[in-house]
Amino acid sequence: MEPAQDFIVTTAPIPPTVDDLAAALDALRARVPLVQSLTNVVSANFLTNVLLAAGASNAHIDNVHEAAGFARIAGGVLINLGTPDDGTAAAFTLAAEAARDAGTPWVLDPVGVGGLPWRTGLAADLLPFRPTAIRGNASEVIALAGLGGDTRGVDSSDDPAAAVPAALALLAHADAVSASGPVDHLVGRDAAGATTGLRIGGGSALLPRVTSTGCALGALAAAYLAVAPTALIGLAAAHAHVAVAAEIADGNATGPGSFAVAFLDALYSVNADVLRVRARVEPLDIPAQA
Amino acid sequence: MEPAQDFIVTTAPIPPTVDDLAAALDALRARVPLVQSLTNVVSANFLTNVLLAAGASNAHIDNVHEAAGFARIAGGVLINLGTPDDGTAAAFTLAAEAARDAGTPWVLDPVGVGGLPWRTGLAADLLPFRPTAIRGNASEVIALAGLGGDTRGVDSSDDPAAAVPAALALLAHADAVSASGPVDHLVGRDAAGATTGLRIGGGSALLPRVTSTGCALGALAAAYLAVAPTALIGLAAAHAHVAVAAEIADGNATGPGSFAVAFLDALYSVNADVLRVRARVEPLDIPAQA
Amino acid sequence: MEPAQDFIVTTAPIPPTVDDLAAALDALRARVPLVQSLTNVVSANFLTNVLLAAGASNAHIDNVHEAAGFARIAGGVLINLGTPDDGTAAAFTLAAEAARDAGTPWVLDPVGVGGLPWRTGLAADLLPFRPTAIRGNASEVIALAGLGGDTRGVDSSDDPAAAVPAALALLAHADAVSASGPVDHLVGRDAAGATTGLRIGGGSALLPRVTSTGCALGALAAAYLAVAPTALIGLAAAHAHVAVAAEIADGNATGPGSFAVAFLDALYSVNADVLRVRARVEPLDIPAQA
Repeated sequence: MEPAQDFIVTTAPIPPTVDDLAAALDALRARVPLVQSLTNVVSANFLTNVLLAAGASNAHIDNVHEAAGFARIAGGVLINLGTPDDGTAAAFTLAAEAARDAGTPWVLDPVGVGGLPWRTGLAADLLPFRPTAIRGNASEVIALAGLGGDTRGVDSSDDPAAAVPAALALLAHADAVSASGPVDHLVGRDAAGATTGLRIGGGSALLPRVTSTGCALGALAAAYLAVAPTALIGLAAAHAHVAVAAEIADGNATGPGSFAVAFLDALYSVNADVLRVRARVEPLDIPAQA
Repeated sequence: MEPAQDFIVTTAPIPPTVDDLAAALDALRARVPLVQSLTNVVSANFLTNVLLAAGASNAHIDNVHEAAGFARIAGGVLINLGTPDDGTAAAFTLAAEAARDAGTPWVLDPVGVGGLPWRTGLAADLLPFRPTAIRGNASEVIALAGLGGDTRGVDSSDDPAAAVPAALALLAHADAVSASGPVDHLVGRDAAGATTGLRIGGGSALLPRVTSTGCALGALAAAYLAVAPTALIGLAAAHAHVAVAAEIADGNATGPGSFAVAFLDALYSVNADVLRVRARVEPLDIPAQA
Repeated sequence: MEPAQDFIVTTAPIPPTVDDLAAALDALRARVPLVQSLTNVVSANFLTNVLLAAGASNAHIDNVHEAAGFARIAGGVLINLGTPDDGTAAAFTLAAEAARDAGTPWVLDPVGVGGLPWRTGLAADLLPFRPTAIRGNASEVIALAGLGGDTRGVDSSDDPAAAVPAALALLAHADAVSASGPVDHLVGRDAAGATTGLRIGGGSALLPRVTSTGCALGALAAAYLAVAPTALIGLAAAHAHVAVAAEIADGNATGPGSFAVAFLDALYSVNADVLRVRARVEPLDIPAQA
């Protein structure tokens, strides 16, 4: 449902609570949503294992013959720009269009957008199909916002807080947007359509030492979008699930190899009670002009 | 060798024994067969690690320039339909044709057949090249049998027992067929050409929580076909090796991450003696009309 | 800088020392070089995790639209012939040409060259772009040297010592060349341009039981080339880092699964002090005619 952009909100926006995220986790486990991933070859295996461990399932279908048809029946779709070629790029468009037409929630992960011109153009072409959620690092979110008519351009900053204005600008194209980092920053809308946001801490310093953890977060967001009442709750539940699991794994790891193993185990073991106790979620102050 | 289909078998069919499977494992370790995999991007790494851990080796060669030539010299070939595109689909045909012509045993893993129309057509085009063995889940085996002129069509059942009639129908196209699940069901022919089958239990509830374990089973079947006296013995040895390793790994795991690690270790440590003691193999009652 | 091939060296060649390799490791950790990988789908994930664990980073960019542009700005480039198709093969050429023109160091890993004719031709076409380093197994190095006008042809020997003459011949095309095996053999030039070499021991019998460890070594070489004073020092630092980490991992593993995990942890934990104590490096006697 498109929120009315010109409606004057007279009550305070209501950000998702930890209980909302815990309920989403319960729904994920109960419904085991099927994700369709169109993702890069580096992340394909790990991302699928993350979905299976967390409680969802995955079909990696990125050929032009099947991408659209499957996007109509999948629970959620991930389009990740990590290693595109001409064939998968064509499949991205077909899947995004079909997802929009069928009402399938989909996530855009703009890997490398900004620094790499070809895929930056691919991302620009995908935005009109209105992703349900966008997840990137700070630089990617800032670069992608530039595509949307904004003139901020590319910023190589690694600080997700610096990406909040860009994330807010991207709400013209998506229902929820997140910038990942030491503390993840998320923006979206509450049930009444008011702009709100969250900061989600936790995680581990070893998380960026394991490839595809960010890509897997995008995939998990696609799974949660299939079961959550709003895009922001779904996106936030994925972030919180990953952050809590990473924090648990950090205590069981001696390096990036053992961390990745413990992370999958923790994604599997975390339940709604654990999430409620350990998730580090707080409302994000949205700048007044937003 | 094609069994005479119209020959009246007057002695009882002789299903493979655990000793047959243990002998195949010894042969695998002694000969280290080289598999050629044409497989999906999700499974490519894990599947190769499974082969190396079990005692075989792998070359992932799925381009149109080299697929046929290598299929003539490989010990066994795996064609897995998990993530086809136009290029790899063309390579599938070239490899299947070359394998048939050269007498190289090959395995067809019909991932997603039935639910996805394009690859269902690819599978139909591959059957005339007569796979040595077919391995899928119950739904895929039932769907693939529909392609063979049977009218059972697609069945989304997860119960491998329900796929036995489809597996038997597929023996018109292959020498052995298996449907994976909590208890794997396999059919094929004994040395005299009589239809027989096995049920293989064991495994772990964590096995479906790790991606590509089914694909890896298909690859391991291709390795065993290179060293086993019959297709059914080769296929069954792969199933038993995986089931025993998964059962061992289950006792050493706290979740899907640690399970995958322990599974590779167990594939490596299982030997013929362990297989003889732990494999849960029993004859399958074949319906009278088969 | 091209060494003068016809210059008569009057002082003894100076092979890299362990202190040179330890200094390269310190430089790697300080500078975190960004590798561009054009590699096979089997190795893409593991190779990236190896780079992240060791202290570098990776972008897998192998499409024809972006391969050249990124090769101009990357710290080092890996071109690995493991699973080429027409698209990635075209990207190999673009990346190699751009790397040469921009002065970006690049590594050629000739996976399967010799046994597979199409990719053997690809490797021949890449040699004129002058790789900074070449890393392969003994058979691949011998086969690749045959391409360079040498008539040794393909030798299936697994003994890296047998590949030393081929590696020396390849110094007409590259600044450093290594053949991996139980004891790695490396040749290259000292700061004065004199041909020298190293033998590097250590490792683990489990290393060849984990796929993509050789590919990851090539990628790590590309990272070290970005920070090392000579190609031979960079290539040798990668070999020593891997060999020491594998030896440590061997002591913490019960099979190939746990070995791979412990290997990533050890790549992360090994520092210059550990390398100095544990690296098994000794000068290689170069045949007189070299």
